[in-house]
Amino acid sequence: MNTVDMTHGGGGRAMADLIRDVFHKHLGNPTLDQGDDAAVFDAPQGRLVMSTDGHVIAPLFFPGGDIGALSVHGTVNDLAMMGANPLYLTAGFILEEGFPLAELERIARSMADAARAADVQIISGDTKVVERGKGDGVFITTTGLGVVPDGVDISARNVLPGQSVLVSGTMGDHGVAVLSKRENLAFETEILSDSTALHGLVADMLKAVPSLAMLRDPTRGGLAATLNEIATAAGVGITLDEAQIPIAPDVAAACELLGLDPLNTANEGKLIAICPSADAPALRDAMRLHPLGRNAAIIGEVTTDPTHLVLMTTAFGGTRIVDWLAGEQLPRIC
Amino acid sequence: MNTVDMTHGGGGRAMADLIRDVFHKHLGNPTLDQGDDAAVFDAPQGRLVMSTDGHVIAPLFFPGGDIGALSVHGTVNDLAMMGANPLYLTAGFILEEGFPLAELERIARSMADAARAADVQIISGDTKVVERGKGDGVFITTTGLGVVPDGVDISARNVLPGQSVLVSGTMGDHGVAVLSKRENLAFETEILSDSTALHGLVADMLKAVPSLAMLRDPTRGGLAATLNEIATAAGVGITLDEAQIPIAPDVAAACELLGLDPLNTANEGKLIAICPSADAPALRDAMRLHPLGRNAAIIGEVTTDPTHLVLMTTAFGGTRIVDWLAGEQLPRIC
Repeated sequence: MNTVDMTHGGGGRAMADLIRDVFHKHLGNPTLDQGDDAAVFDAPQGRLVMSTDGHVIAPLFFPGGDIGALSVHGTVNDLAMMGANPLYLTAGFILEEGFPLAELERIARSMADAARAADVQIISGDTKVVERGKGDGVFITTTGLGVVPDGVDISARNVLPGQSVLVSGTMGDHGVAVLSKRENLAFETEILSDSTALHGLVADMLKAVPSLAMLRDPTRGGLAATLNEIATAAGVGITLDEAQIPIAPDVAAACELLGLDPLNTANEGKLIAICPSADAPALRDAMRLHPLGRNAAIIGEVTTDPTHLVLMTTAFGGTRIVDWLAGEQLPRIC
Repeated sequence: MNTVDMTHGGGGRAMADLIRDVFHKHLGNPTLDQGDDAAVFDAPQGRLVMSTDGHVIAPLFFPGGDIGALSVHGTVNDLAMMGANPLYLTAGFILEEGFPLAELERIARSMADAARAADVQIISGDTKVVERGKGDGVFITTTGLGVVPDGVDISARNVLPGQSVLVSGTMGDHGVAVLSKRENLAFETEILSDSTALHGLVADMLKAVPSLAMLRDPTRGGLAATLNEIATAAGVGITLDEAQIPIAPDVAAACELLGLDPLNTANEGKLIAICPSADAPALRDAMRLHPLGRNAAIIGEVTTDPTHLVLMTTAFGGTRIVDWLAGEQLPRIC
């Protein structure tokens, strides 16, 4: 038996075998190995953060990552964006009948590697199987629990006019990497997804600049959508300086070729940070000292704007509105 | 726009509108309404329990429930089976392009009602959209966090030969209700799913019989699969008395007609309990005082058996092995 079949979802012996041979084999740890339907652990002290993220990316394997690692990074980053230390993950798999078990094992191994690198434990899981044509290989929904260190308060509530807006690195890498694989495009140099866990970078940032007001990772919809969300949530405007926004030359070239705007294109290993202007250079410098922030830049500032617009001063000196797309530029990017 | 389309998953304005108009409208609470990608709350004292469950049931609406309520009950019950008080849920939706928004709203409303009845808050969510033919209407993965009261220790580790096995009510109702809807069968009286949250019943049981050793809800694979899992996990055998296992007459008749075994058929509002024999009558009586346990019964005992078999003394005085199915009797039952 080399593919997933309906018996793997039936609660019987085939499911027990699959869980043991694929998931426990790669993801096992003392809590998961308790084998109960739920995992028990001592409550950490302080404020907790919980977040969930479904992953439906197509294709499942792409340059620089796969759905397994992405499902760890995506949820770890949601916790990190609240300033939390990620502790535990759960993983719910929805498998399509006929999916090759060897690929499932590759995904489980990749999840295990990503969890180990991020120092989080996958403590509980669930597997469902749907008929051929009712799913698409593998969907993975991960939920994370983390703890916010004392004194850390990262929230849209802290965003005020006059503060500075920073990004940790180049925009659009993940979206272009996935699209290039999906469309079978070959560029001169392979563009890799930036998929990675950001909580280590965040910890360094908080140490250097405790006044950090807000963090958010610009995933689906890219920088443009995420800044519009922030502006709306915080009730402010944002003005960007186009020349300061880091974009890798090969990504810029690919976007031009593909008719994409890198500001609308997804990232999975970058963050937006907002802090008091006086602290912005120190925050940028602290980010640059971390391998995941070496291209960090101050890209704009928070303004007073009752209409909550995101504006950009272009390289030619004009100003344009950075709107979020009504729909989406790239489906199933995460 | 009356159906889900790909723009609803793109991270842009259409997704924001969907989240506001469907999910926040029905599921809103102060934590969810923070609008961040993760929810923050104060850590409860004690041991925490976390569990995740994907829901892919077909059809989405069935006699006695729907995927929305089920996705709350399923995860609440996983927490309850550890003796925990459920506190928080997250919900990840995977929507298929073309799904009617009116049905999505019906599902969200049903989740909200179920969460309110179970006194849990849905504090964080996620929405993804896949193309037509790559999903099946709606999949919902819920993850729950609960807290175990001091002194409560429910685990397979506590199961010992000589203890008694109880169930809280009739077996097989959910599976038969779903199958009857799926196959468009009409019985004389409509058979309803037992889908419900069991933590209130569990609290009463723990109050009456603190020596309660183990709990488990017999969902996929039914009583047979769940008892086999328990026997394997605890390293014991189990012997059942067929005459004592409660099965509703209409469910028994439907199972005979459909060629199903009610012991392999899923439940979503019943539990298996194991406790010291001396306390079993008190536990049964406590269960019977609760509306969800009024058909509770002592159905067997834990035995010493190095092969971990589940055996049943039949109504005719013989003995048969109650095996778990190699595969599954009913696909997509939860």
